[in-house]
Amino acid sequence: MYNSTVMEHFTNPRNVGEIENPDGVGVYGSPVCGDMMQIMIKVEDEKIVDAKFKTFGCGSAIASSSMATEMIIGKTIDEALAITNKQIVDELGGLPPVKIHCSVLADHAIKSAIYDYAQKN
Amino acid sequence: MYNSTVMEHFTNPRNVGEIENPDGVGVYGSPVCGDMMQIMIKVEDEKIVDAKFKTFGCGSAIASSSMATEMIIGKTIDEALAITNKQIVDELGGLPPVKIHCSVLADHAIKSAIYDYAQKN
Ligand code: FES
Repeated sequence: MYNSTVMEHFTNPRNVGEIENPDGVGVYGSPVCGDMMQIMIKVEDEKIVDAKFKTFGCGSAIASSSMATEMIIGKTIDEALAITNKQIVDELGGLPPVKIHCSVLADHAIKSAIYDYAQKN
Repeated sequence: MYNSTVMEHFTNPRNVGEIENPDGVGVYGSPVCGDMMQIMIKVEDEKIVDAKFKTFGCGSAIASSSMATEMIIGKTIDEALAITNKQIVDELGGLPPVKIHCSVLADHAIKSAIYDYAQKN
């Protein structure tokens, strides 16, 4: 059901946890499954230098957030905002259709963390 | 959002994995979130002597399956079939309403494993 990239990020997720004194915090709850995702970012000179996530969500949510946080670290705020949910799924090599909503969880939590940062600055 | 019993079973789940030569195998996919659960049971003299689960599902599904497999081990087939989803949730000390469907995943996979056993015997 899942490809090896998804399985690898699920069993060995990157960037799990929290950031001390984050510059932006995003929380998003999925209307589909009820799962919650929290993403924290650290920003320096408009560049995302660190990102961490926490979730009680499923394997697809974990793999998507692991990949998505990897994708935004090192990017500017504008570049990170431009990343689409489809790009996250593509980087994962695809997800089963019923699990696309789990990658949306990661995508929305990241955007919400960036908006939180933007509002404070 | 989650009580300490749920968190304990999530972070330290019991009975994860597979059984060699299982007497019954149940697989169930949630129509709500798309997650899948597999439960294998070992039966001796109509008594469930071992149970193991595997899932890509969320923390609530993991905690529910951990608790549910603990509850059926040592029980007869009839006693295990009589266990309700509500009893699993109660043993966990409750789940948020949006996550009840995750415990249903465990409950249905167990029933499906028992039916698989019954059909073969
Ligand atoms: S959201 Fe799918 S099992 Fe919990």
